[in-house]
Amino acid sequence: MEKFEGKQIIGGTFSASGTESFAAVDRTSGQKLPYIFYKATNKEAGLAASKAGSAFAAVRNKTGAEKAAFLDAIVNEITAITEDLVHIASLESALPEARIRSEKDRTLNQIRLFASLLRDGYWVDARIETADPSRSPIPKPDIRSMQRPLGPVVVFGASNFPLAFSVAGGDTISAFAAGCPVIFKAHSAHPATCELVGKAIVRASEQCGMPSGIFSMLYGDGAVVGSMLVQHPAIKAVAFTGSYKAGKAIFDTAVKRPEPIPVYAEMGSTNPVFVLPEAMKQRAESIAAGYSAALTLGVGQFCTNPGLLIHQDGEHKDPFHSSLKSAFTNTKGGVMLAKNIETAYTDGIAARKMVTGLEVMAEGVETDSPAHQQPVLFTTTFAEYNMHPELEEELFGPSGIVISAGAKDDLLAFAEGLSGHLTATVHGTDDELPQYRDLVEILERKVGRVVINGFPTGVEVNHAMVHGGPFPACTDARCTSVGSAAIYRFTRPVCYQSFPQTLLPAELDNANTLGIHRLVNGKITNTPI
Amino acid sequence: MEKFEGKQIIGGTFSASGTESFAAVDRTSGQKLPYIFYKATNKEAGLAASKAGSAFAAVRNKTGAEKAAFLDAIVNEITAITEDLVHIASLESALPEARIRSEKDRTLNQIRLFASLLRDGYWVDARIETADPSRSPIPKPDIRSMQRPLGPVVVFGASNFPLAFSVAGGDTISAFAAGCPVIFKAHSAHPATCELVGKAIVRASEQCGMPSGIFSMLYGDGAVVGSMLVQHPAIKAVAFTGSYKAGKAIFDTAVKRPEPIPVYAEMGSTNPVFVLPEAMKQRAESIAAGYSAALTLGVGQFCTNPGLLIHQDGEHKDPFHSSLKSAFTNTKGGVMLAKNIETAYTDGIAARKMVTGLEVMAEGVETDSPAHQQPVLFTTTFAEYNMHPELEEELFGPSGIVISAGAKDDLLAFAEGLSGHLTATVHGTDDELPQYRDLVEILERKVGRVVINGFPTGVEVNHAMVHGGPFPACTDARCTSVGSAAIYRFTRPVCYQSFPQTLLPAELDNANTLGIHRLVNGKITNTPI
Repeated sequence: MEKFEGKQIIGGTFSASGTESFAAVDRTSGQKLPYIFYKATNKEAGLAASKAGSAFAAVRNKTGAEKAAFLDAIVNEITAITEDLVHIASLESALPEARIRSEKDRTLNQIRLFASLLRDGYWVDARIETADPSRSPIPKPDIRSMQRPLGPVVVFGASNFPLAFSVAGGDTISAFAAGCPVIFKAHSAHPATCELVGKAIVRASEQCGMPSGIFSMLYGDGAVVGSMLVQHPAIKAVAFTGSYKAGKAIFDTAVKRPEPIPVYAEMGSTNPVFVLPEAMKQRAESIAAGYSAALTLGVGQFCTNPGLLIHQDGEHKDPFHSSLKSAFTNTKGGVMLAKNIETAYTDGIAARKMVTGLEVMAEGVETDSPAHQQPVLFTTTFAEYNMHPELEEELFGPSGIVISAGAKDDLLAFAEGLSGHLTATVHGTDDELPQYRDLVEILERKVGRVVINGFPTGVEVNHAMVHGGPFPACTDARCTSVGSAAIYRFTRPVCYQSFPQTLLPAELDNANTLGIHRLVNGKITNTPI
Repeated sequence: MEKFEGKQIIGGTFSASGTESFAAVDRTSGQKLPYIFYKATNKEAGLAASKAGSAFAAVRNKTGAEKAAFLDAIVNEITAITEDLVHIASLESALPEARIRSEKDRTLNQIRLFASLLRDGYWVDARIETADPSRSPIPKPDIRSMQRPLGPVVVFGASNFPLAFSVAGGDTISAFAAGCPVIFKAHSAHPATCELVGKAIVRASEQCGMPSGIFSMLYGDGAVVGSMLVQHPAIKAVAFTGSYKAGKAIFDTAVKRPEPIPVYAEMGSTNPVFVLPEAMKQRAESIAAGYSAALTLGVGQFCTNPGLLIHQDGEHKDPFHSSLKSAFTNTKGGVMLAKNIETAYTDGIAARKMVTGLEVMAEGVETDSPAHQQPVLFTTTFAEYNMHPELEEELFGPSGIVISAGAKDDLLAFAEGLSGHLTATVHGTDDELPQYRDLVEILERKVGRVVINGFPTGVEVNHAMVHGGPFPACTDARCTSVGSAAIYRFTRPVCYQSFPQTLLPAELDNANTLGIHRLVNGKITNTPI
């Protein structure tokens, strides 16, 4: 294991000018590890922001190929430290090594996806309107536009994916891909993991001749160092994955700035699952097994954890509930990602056990370890659920609520009453799904992703994924935080009127040097002009 | 002239339940016209919002062809009332009939552009990732996504374009095109014009079988009825064109809602013009003539009015200033759009005349009419300008400031010091422009549109236009309010995972029924799957 510096990384330089510090923790034993991390001072935060601001002009001008090479170098540098990374990330998060290995693969694939997007180049949404000097009553000028980077971005790491939503996660990488410097606020639950990846990014940026200000990483409390960063005038956007409370606080800070900036806070949701009558009849066991597995995967610590399941009453209800009980009774809990998450879960479970009309349907396998949290499945009726609107809120962990509704109208009413969620899922047979088109259409208005006959916990990283949704799931429903379209969170269109060819970005030139598809006079084409 | 109702239009029905009213005004004479308009009550605003909310599900499901037919019907209905419209709009705005006629043409062309966009269909950004059951370690599910409408939109009309940025202007039409119901807050400077166009939209919606809640129009004060609308839970986005003060107030209201919503406020800017040395030498007269014309066009009442001009000192300065003086002395002023605009202009000119170091360089043609505002061109040095940061703020009207800078570094410093603007313009010869690439790159970071050797006042309506820019020009730099890309202000991506073909929107089906270009497994193609 390499030595830990325990310091801020500010534009490639280590810095620890503060006095406050904290130790990394072996999450499973609860014991402190011998790695101390200094919290950033306000001055260090300001310096990181200024360096990012100064670096922006140069980063902005990097070509797609140059940015892709940088991302490739990050992949190589992270690959080179795989064993150390797997060891330390597993230690800090209590996630099994196999999970960390697959998350590392996911993280690298995510970086490769953005590298390929940059090499393909079409993502800039190049639009060209050629001049027409003969147009009457006035000549038509040459107008071209494309997406350009917004400026320095602050990224807050998530607790639940110490690699995929952390230092070199989708937020950082999509911001780099857009051409934005990044200041990463390390999550205090896995500081040593962050340092390993942060140093890998620094090495990659040095190899690729990126300006040092392209990346900084700071430790400290979100409400202190994070808030300071969000308020810095050099910062032009913020990405966050975590709790509603923290995400909304960042949003409120950002919109109150003299110059308001966009905040992409992905704050999780309860991801309702609808089981239609025929599916409940024909597939009780497989749905019960799938739901129980999805709900308890990774000790239930996914943004897309399906915390609500609703179905209609009827003769097939009891067999379905029996299947759910027997499947759920076999689920296993585990050590949660952080002490505060564990406390919120145990408090939440205790509170739910006090709710009138909400009953424990099944519990997962018990263990002797007090650090090991047990899955709990509750059940209630739609009438009771309606009395307790707080049940729609996320309880982060391996717990869900099964709701028995009367008829189809109740399912529609439940759907229409939902606030914004990341996902919704419908289980139905081929025959009955068309009869529930109205339900699906309501859900499309409520969420970012609708899943048919599956479970939402697997979030594919590709060009079509939408990991986002209406408030309160996210602060900006117009975006995704996973998949290649996440790049558009960090760009804005810039328009070039009557530019000589030599001053135009290659993406907009007549020759179509990059060979990309462009919208030319209203037609999509990859031919030159 | 047809009779005026003087009432709110709420989902196709006239309503006037309040007691407060105001009269339309003949702007040139200042006399009241015999048309009285009732201001909306809170209850009427709430009813319009609820109706829009109820209509959304149906509007959302309209196909591109159905929405295009609706837009065509609006074109036809407006065309049918051309003469009444030109008469009343000219009366209310004091804009010449010829200007109103060309603005009407522009408005209809804008509607036709969105109709063609809907018929072409590619705008939805369809993305398809096909399933791969054999993928290891886990099968790849079928994932598809496309842009879908956000929900009901509140649009605030602008004073300066009583047709093109009003009832059937770009904001309303792009929201309709996206599939969103619209509640239009009529501008009090041209209520009768608004009623004519509002009734045309109602007739068109009835012909096309649109739900009545797709369109409402309310009269009243922005701070009262507008604020009520912005806060209504059914409303999902706001578009505004007007002053910084009003736009920022709407933004602040919208982000404080329990569910924050996006606000697209286009608040104008000063649109700096840079004249490079060789251009100043070779084209003094034509630049001076073009600048004077752009600055005074429409009594200077354009968001893109180029209120600042900067150039380097040197031997060609005096001849350039002489050219500016003689060109500007021939410019004509006129009656401004509204009394409050006139007052702000005269107050602003008076204030500028008091600024130390800011001198009057030239004034336009004088008239006897006290309602007629005269153009004024000021001049100062870069050193003096730096002492008065308020000079970067927009003074709405036919006035500008010519700034003499020392060397190229001053131009770069001036550019780097700029806040966000809609546009920036550079005049330079083919030889010198490449030497000022650094200037152009700074400007790209500061504005939505950079113009070379032209003037920014003409805003083309096409696929490549960007009419937007960083704060404080706009509250959301990621968007344009003019051109077909304006539609994306009112959409968000929705993702369909493992959907049967019958439940998918036509835009995402295997057959590619609509024949549109889509991103299929990372490649842009218009072939079926």
